[in-house]
Amino acid sequence: MIPVSAAKQHIQEQLQRGAVEWIPLEEALDRVLAESLSSAVQVPHFDNSAMDGYAFHFDSWKGQPLQIVGEVAAGDAAAELCAPGTAVRIFTGAKVPNGADTVVMQEKTRVEGGLLFVEDALLKQGGNVRLAGSQTRVGQKVADACTPLTAPMIGFLASLGIASVPVFAQPKVAIIVTGNEIVPPGQPLLDGQVYECNSFSLRAAFQKMGVFPTVQRCEDNPDAIAKAIGEALAVCDLLILTGGVSVGDYDFVIPALQQLQVQQVFHKVKQKPAKPLYFGVHNQTIVFGLPGNPASVLTSYYVYVAPWLRHYQGGEAWPVHTAQFVGSHASKPGLTRFLKGNWDGQKVQLTEGQESYRMDGFAVSNCIIELPEDCAEVSDSDRVNIIPF
Amino acid sequence: MIPVSAAKQHIQEQLQRGAVEWIPLEEALDRVLAESLSSAVQVPHFDNSAMDGYAFHFDSWKGQPLQIVGEVAAGDAAAELCAPGTAVRIFTGAKVPNGADTVVMQEKTRVEGGLLFVEDALLKQGGNVRLAGSQTRVGQKVADACTPLTAPMIGFLASLGIASVPVFAQPKVAIIVTGNEIVPPGQPLLDGQVYECNSFSLRAAFQKMGVFPTVQRCEDNPDAIAKAIGEALAVCDLLILTGGVSVGDYDFVIPALQQLQVQQVFHKVKQKPAKPLYFGVHNQTIVFGLPGNPASVLTSYYVYVAPWLRHYQGGEAWPVHTAQFVGSHASKPGLTRFLKGNWDGQKVQLTEGQESYRMDGFAVSNCIIELPEDCAEVSDSDRVNIIPF
Repeated sequence: MIPVSAAKQHIQEQLQRGAVEWIPLEEALDRVLAESLSSAVQVPHFDNSAMDGYAFHFDSWKGQPLQIVGEVAAGDAAAELCAPGTAVRIFTGAKVPNGADTVVMQEKTRVEGGLLFVEDALLKQGGNVRLAGSQTRVGQKVADACTPLTAPMIGFLASLGIASVPVFAQPKVAIIVTGNEIVPPGQPLLDGQVYECNSFSLRAAFQKMGVFPTVQRCEDNPDAIAKAIGEALAVCDLLILTGGVSVGDYDFVIPALQQLQVQQVFHKVKQKPAKPLYFGVHNQTIVFGLPGNPASVLTSYYVYVAPWLRHYQGGEAWPVHTAQFVGSHASKPGLTRFLKGNWDGQKVQLTEGQESYRMDGFAVSNCIIELPEDCAEVSDSDRVNIIPF
Repeated sequence: MIPVSAAKQHIQEQLQRGAVEWIPLEEALDRVLAESLSSAVQVPHFDNSAMDGYAFHFDSWKGQPLQIVGEVAAGDAAAELCAPGTAVRIFTGAKVPNGADTVVMQEKTRVEGGLLFVEDALLKQGGNVRLAGSQTRVGQKVADACTPLTAPMIGFLASLGIASVPVFAQPKVAIIVTGNEIVPPGQPLLDGQVYECNSFSLRAAFQKMGVFPTVQRCEDNPDAIAKAIGEALAVCDLLILTGGVSVGDYDFVIPALQQLQVQQVFHKVKQKPAKPLYFGVHNQTIVFGLPGNPASVLTSYYVYVAPWLRHYQGGEAWPVHTAQFVGSHASKPGLTRFLKGNWDGQKVQLTEGQESYRMDGFAVSNCIIELPEDCAEVSDSDRVNIIPF
C-alpha cells in the first residue's frame, strides 16, 4: 500500500501526449493546439474604413470642398483612384482607394452640388482608417503550441483564413464494468441485484472532456474478464475497469491483468475511498482498475484519471485550489481522505452521504476535498485542498 | 438608442423555456431536468454487506463459534437462511441472508474445522451492514426540476434505475452571416475581401452550450437576405444575424426584418462595441441582429444572447461576478463599455487589441469587463463587473 503522493507520482511518470492530427477549425472547440500557428495573411488585409463616410487625401485637402468621384463598398475591389481635390464615398470595411489616406465619417460632412464639405475640426491624417497589418503581420506567430481552442480563439484563427488546425488527438478509451450483481438502468431488478451506474458516471465525466469511450459490462468470470480486457488492450490508449480489484474470492480483474502481462505499477493506496486502486501499463496502454463502489469510481476518476487525460489532450496541469472549510470533520489518521464538497468559489463544506456506496451526496457536490494522511481533524476556517469538477 | 440596462430588460421580457423532452440518460450530460424526479426503488435495494466477511445473527451469537453453512456473493439471490448458531460466508455488496443482521470482516475472524471464530471485540449489532433504503426510499424525490445533469448526478440517477430523463429541449438556432466582403477560411482572398470568422466564433460559442446551429453565408443583397431570413424564421427558435444592421446604404438586414413582419423590440444601444445591436421577435422566434465586426459579434453573444439561451435551457441566471481591476483605463462617458479582459479568479486586466474589428485580443481573453455608461475612468484596484466565458 503506497501513499497518495506516490500514486500520483507514478501516474506522472506515465504521462503521454496524443498524436498530432489536423482537423477542420469548426470541429476544434476545446481541443488544444499541438503546434504553434503563424498567419499567412496580414490583418487587416488592406487599409480599410472604420466608418461609413468619405475617403480623401489629407495633406492635399487644405480644407477645400472635394469633388465626389465614386463609391467603394465592403467587398469591392476598389479600383477607384482618389486624386487630390476629390473624395470617394466609402463604407465600413471597404478598401481605402489608392491616393486616399483618411476617412471622414458621414455625420461630419455636408454634400452640396456634388461637392463634399468636411466638417470635422478634429480629423487627423489617417483618421478612421484601419491600416493593413495593424493587427497581424504576414508570418507572425499567432498562437503557441498548447493553446486551448476557445470560441474567441477559433474566431481569431478563422479571421486569418485558417481552415484546419493541428491538435492533440483524443485517446481511445474503453470502460469495462464488472460484477454479477449489476443490471442496466431501465430493467427490473432481481433479488440481490443493483443498478449499474459506474459506466454512466464515467462516460459522462469523459464526455465532459470531449472523449467518447466504449462501454462493456462483464460478469465476475475469469475467462470473460480476461477476454474483455484482452480485446480492449488491443485497441485503446486508456482502459478503465471498475470492480473486482480487491483480493476477494470474486475479484478476477487483477489475475486477468497479470495473465495478460499488464505491468502493475501499483495496487492499493493509503486512501479512503478507493483503497484497492490499481494502476498498470501494457505497451502504450494505461490501465486503471477502480474499486467498484460508485463514489470510489468517480473519486478515482477526478483524482487520478482526469489529470492523466488532461495531459494527453495537451492541457496544463490543474492548479491546486484551496478553500476555507466550513464546519468540522474528524477522521482516523493514516489514510488520505477524499470527501465530497460544495465549493462556492471561496468556502467549502461537506455534502451529506460520504460513504463510498452512496451517490446521493456526490450528485450535489462540485468538488472533492483532499485531507492529508496525517489529518485527524479539520475545523472551521481551516484551509483545505480541493479538486473542483 | 437605449441604455444597456433597458436592452437587458427587454431581453428578460422575452425569455422562454425549451419544451420538455425525454432523452436517454447517457445522452443527458449538461442538460437540465425539466421536472423533478422520484425514485422507484430503494437504495440499497436490500440489506447488503459492506465487507468481505461472515454474516450472522448478533443477539443469538453470544461469542460462541459459529457453524459456516453457506456462501453468498454479490448478485446472488441469497436463498440461504442463517439460523442461530450459524454463519454465512458473504462478499461485498452481497445480500445479507435472512436471519442474519451483522457482518464481521474476514480479517477479524479465524476458521477452524468448519467453525467460525469471531475476533472483533468492537463489533456491534448491524455492523458492516448497509441497510435497505438507508440512502434512498421508494418514492423519495431525488432531484428537483432545473437540476443540471452533471456526471455525478447522472451516476446517481443511473443507480436508481432511471434510464431516461425529462429535460428542456435545446433551441433550434440559425446563424446568417451577411456581407459581400466575406470569404470562408481556406479560400484565397481577392482584393477588398476578408475572411469570415463570425460564424466560426458563434458556432463554437453555441457548441460550448451544447447547441449546434445551422450556418448560412449571405451577400449584401436585399432579396437574398430576406429569403434567408424568411426560411430561418420558419424553422428556428433563435435567429442570429451578423452584419448589415446599421443604417448604411448596404445595410439590408433591418428592412428585410421589417418586410417579414419581425417586431422590433430595440435597435441601437448606448454601448461600445455593438452600438447598432438589434433585437426583435417573430411569433415565438427571437431575432438578434449583431453588428458585423468580429469582436462586436462575440461581445453581443456573451452579454445578450448567452443569458437568453441559458434560460431557455433551464439554467440559472449567471451570477454577477466582480473583480479587482489592474491598471487604468479612461473612456468618454455616455456609452457602456465592454472590454476584453483576463481574469485570474480575483484580479482582471485588459488584453491588448480592444478595437471591435480585432480578434487577437479577444482570442486571449477569458472575460468581458463591463464599465457603466457614466464611467470616465477605471483605476488600479477598482472593482469592476465581469462576464467570464
